[in-house]
Amino acid sequence: MNTSYTAITPSILEELKAIVGEHNLFTDTERIENYSHDETSKEQFSHMPEVVLTPISTEQISEVMKVADRYTIPVTPRGAGSGLSGGAIPIHGGIVLSVEKMNKVLEIDEANLTVTAEAGIVTNELNEQLKRTGLFFAGYPMSLETCFLGGNIAENAGGGKAVKYGVTGRYVLGMEVVTPQGEVVQLGGKVTKDVSGYDLKQLYIGSEGTLGIITKATIRLLGVPKYASNLLVPFRTAQDAISVVPLIMKQGIIPTSIEFMDKSSLEMSCSYLNESLPLEGVGAMLLIEIDGTDEQQVEHDLIQVGDLCSGHKAMEVYIAEDATTRERIWSIRRNIAEAIKVYSPIQSLEDVVVPIGSIPLVLPCLEQLSGKYNMRIPCYGHAGDGNLHATLVKNPESSMEEWLEMEPRLLSEFYAFIVGELGGKISGEHGIGLKRRSFFKDVTPRPEYQLLCAVKQALDPKNIMNPGKILL
Amino acid sequence: MNTSYTAITPSILEELKAIVGEHNLFTDTERIENYSHDETSKEQFSHMPEVVLTPISTEQISEVMKVADRYTIPVTPRGAGSGLSGGAIPIHGGIVLSVEKMNKVLEIDEANLTVTAEAGIVTNELNEQLKRTGLFFAGYPMSLETCFLGGNIAENAGGGKAVKYGVTGRYVLGMEVVTPQGEVVQLGGKVTKDVSGYDLKQLYIGSEGTLGIITKATIRLLGVPKYASNLLVPFRTAQDAISVVPLIMKQGIIPTSIEFMDKSSLEMSCSYLNESLPLEGVGAMLLIEIDGTDEQQVEHDLIQVGDLCSGHKAMEVYIAEDATTRERIWSIRRNIAEAIKVYSPIQSLEDVVVPIGSIPLVLPCLEQLSGKYNMRIPCYGHAGDGNLHATLVKNPESSMEEWLEMEPRLLSEFYAFIVGELGGKISGEHGIGLKRRSFFKDVTPRPEYQLLCAVKQALDPKNIMNPGKILL
Repeated sequence: MNTSYTAITPSILEELKAIVGEHNLFTDTERIENYSHDETSKEQFSHMPEVVLTPISTEQISEVMKVADRYTIPVTPRGAGSGLSGGAIPIHGGIVLSVEKMNKVLEIDEANLTVTAEAGIVTNELNEQLKRTGLFFAGYPMSLETCFLGGNIAENAGGGKAVKYGVTGRYVLGMEVVTPQGEVVQLGGKVTKDVSGYDLKQLYIGSEGTLGIITKATIRLLGVPKYASNLLVPFRTAQDAISVVPLIMKQGIIPTSIEFMDKSSLEMSCSYLNESLPLEGVGAMLLIEIDGTDEQQVEHDLIQVGDLCSGHKAMEVYIAEDATTRERIWSIRRNIAEAIKVYSPIQSLEDVVVPIGSIPLVLPCLEQLSGKYNMRIPCYGHAGDGNLHATLVKNPESSMEEWLEMEPRLLSEFYAFIVGELGGKISGEHGIGLKRRSFFKDVTPRPEYQLLCAVKQALDPKNIMNPGKILL
Repeated sequence: MNTSYTAITPSILEELKAIVGEHNLFTDTERIENYSHDETSKEQFSHMPEVVLTPISTEQISEVMKVADRYTIPVTPRGAGSGLSGGAIPIHGGIVLSVEKMNKVLEIDEANLTVTAEAGIVTNELNEQLKRTGLFFAGYPMSLETCFLGGNIAENAGGGKAVKYGVTGRYVLGMEVVTPQGEVVQLGGKVTKDVSGYDLKQLYIGSEGTLGIITKATIRLLGVPKYASNLLVPFRTAQDAISVVPLIMKQGIIPTSIEFMDKSSLEMSCSYLNESLPLEGVGAMLLIEIDGTDEQQVEHDLIQVGDLCSGHKAMEVYIAEDATTRERIWSIRRNIAEAIKVYSPIQSLEDVVVPIGSIPLVLPCLEQLSGKYNMRIPCYGHAGDGNLHATLVKNPESSMEEWLEMEPRLLSEFYAFIVGELGGKISGEHGIGLKRRSFFKDVTPRPEYQLLCAVKQALDPKNIMNPGKILL
């Protein structure tokens, strides 16, 4: 694929400025440095753009792409920068195109249960604006206080409620996309079924900004469930906790969430938040949410799940019914990634996903790798989806060189086990991005990899749209 | 796109015979005639293949595709031939590749709630084999007694239960596909989340056999809901009936089905089945199903929906709780398409889908067109999805020439209204196929159409894979 690009000259800058206006373009080192990394380890993955643009309309983005296409300039779309696979890092320099100023709700259509919003709206803000309608967007990425809708879609974000509600893509009915050639395309609409042509909408969902820039989306809304309740269930060992997950999933009740947190994760997050939990003798906890429109049904399901845990080595079953306690516990869960990062900025947050029945097999593998490579690997995640966020943490005593040599070796072994032995995938919701692209190539059979390259080549023949991500 | 193909010579036939064996290849006119059409009007759309193959394995299909690729021979994949858009018609001759002999369940994985089966299994047969597990595949196309799993996926079939359960694509976790070049690709797996590369699986779902041949699929199963009950609700006018649908959808209960049937559809089906319904003074009926794991909840929801209908012009609300009565009513619904076909073989079964809130606007348009073109247009369908099967029926008094002149003019007007005025799509579940390809080109904005062509060109550069379908 092409990686020979035109450097941005003063005259190209002038062209760009004429499109977006001088307030929406900057090149000073201090400001553009913020756009050189995402939530992956800065030491390993950052790269400076030549210019950052913050366009305010689809038309501006379209004109920018036409310039980039004409001169062959790489363009890296950027949401909130909360990504976890390096997707927003401009590794070939060029333009970072941030949608941060396109953050409006455009329409709430209560008759059709949809909301249409710009890509730069913060996920939580979207639900705030929907509150009065009694409707909500069911996506619940852990970064919902910062992440943008456009980023959710570009990564097909999962999150804490995907066991019941599924991932972001299920809710995207329509979207507006600017192609690498600067064409504006409307995909889907307010219809719930559609087989009119290939599913281009789904092709863009999760494409990590490598096929085009998502500028607007129409999202299907659900009624806010009237009742929700949580169980917090400690187990003596991580293996005991994780082994209950397939049993819960098999009994016919669909919980909203089944989150797994091992002791290290819990300790780090509690310490980061200055919170406390009864962790004496605890190896791991499950956080289980049930919601619904019928209070008795929610309670009934909760008791049934609680009983099942009790019958399978749970030390206790705590019920958290009131909103404050629930938010406290969920905050501990949501802050684990950040807490581990504060504990050690050099780390690798993993995102493997395996068939539900195989979840119990992941932990022994991690334990073995942790021993072999002398590296701590706290683990937590969306166990109900088979999606675990094992996190490799650099041993404070080992050098950066050692880390850079050990981390890929460990990951290769881990991924080979996940994909080869368990039929899993190396990313469930964070994406391949920059960070996993060489591993992805390694674990993907050649014919499938060629299909992916053919699609990329067809839609972005000059390879200017977020080049170097997903595919090598 | 290439449409210059090699005719199948005796020596190519020998090559194909060596791959599939002589029992799986035939060229005699009488037998191949069965493979020259699907459920679209034979008079308008049939075309003879040069040879029909019934391979028994993925390996055979792969070898056949390599031969087709080498000689540039068009290959039309075929399921049960129950398609409604001409997708299985070999309009350029060449090979029809039927998966009818690949009809086995390969694995029922109760731990992961999945079934893996070959593409040629009949939908109903799949659920029959699952019965003992208490699990089921939630797809429910109206042709479930004949249609194949592979065809369901290739068309992304919807059907009678999509309001609650969604369409086929939601349940396809993994699939095996043979590419136009004869490569065998495994997409997805038993995982519920996956952002490892573009969503190729979803690209093949609904691609109508134009990008490759689906040979196997792994399907996510659900627990069979313990309780189900139906309402049959007559209204004086079709408009009264359809106007209730958005109201039902807005109140927070998600029915399994909301089917709409106008008087003509009901009469034709009852007459075809020798059934009777109380149709005195009735303009249309809604058939509403509610299912669930809790009997009281099902009853409660059913009463709430029934009350809503009563408060909005329903003439009666009949409850059908027992399985026999339910199957009787559903049989009337399922047989409407066949009944209309028997009444008039020259007809056009439409499949438009509109935003739920706009459903009431479709019928006045149909009425106006029916008058203008002097053509009966019985209408029925999955109203809860906004998906209506208006059916243009040739007036017995008009000639075939008149029909061939009027039908496309009427459809152009109808589609322009549906897409341009209502933001709908011309096909919700039957596909574009052969029948709608020129209309599809007309209603699709040029940049989007170019993206579709780019994808097709990238994955099937010789245009041998079901050429002439979807795209012109």
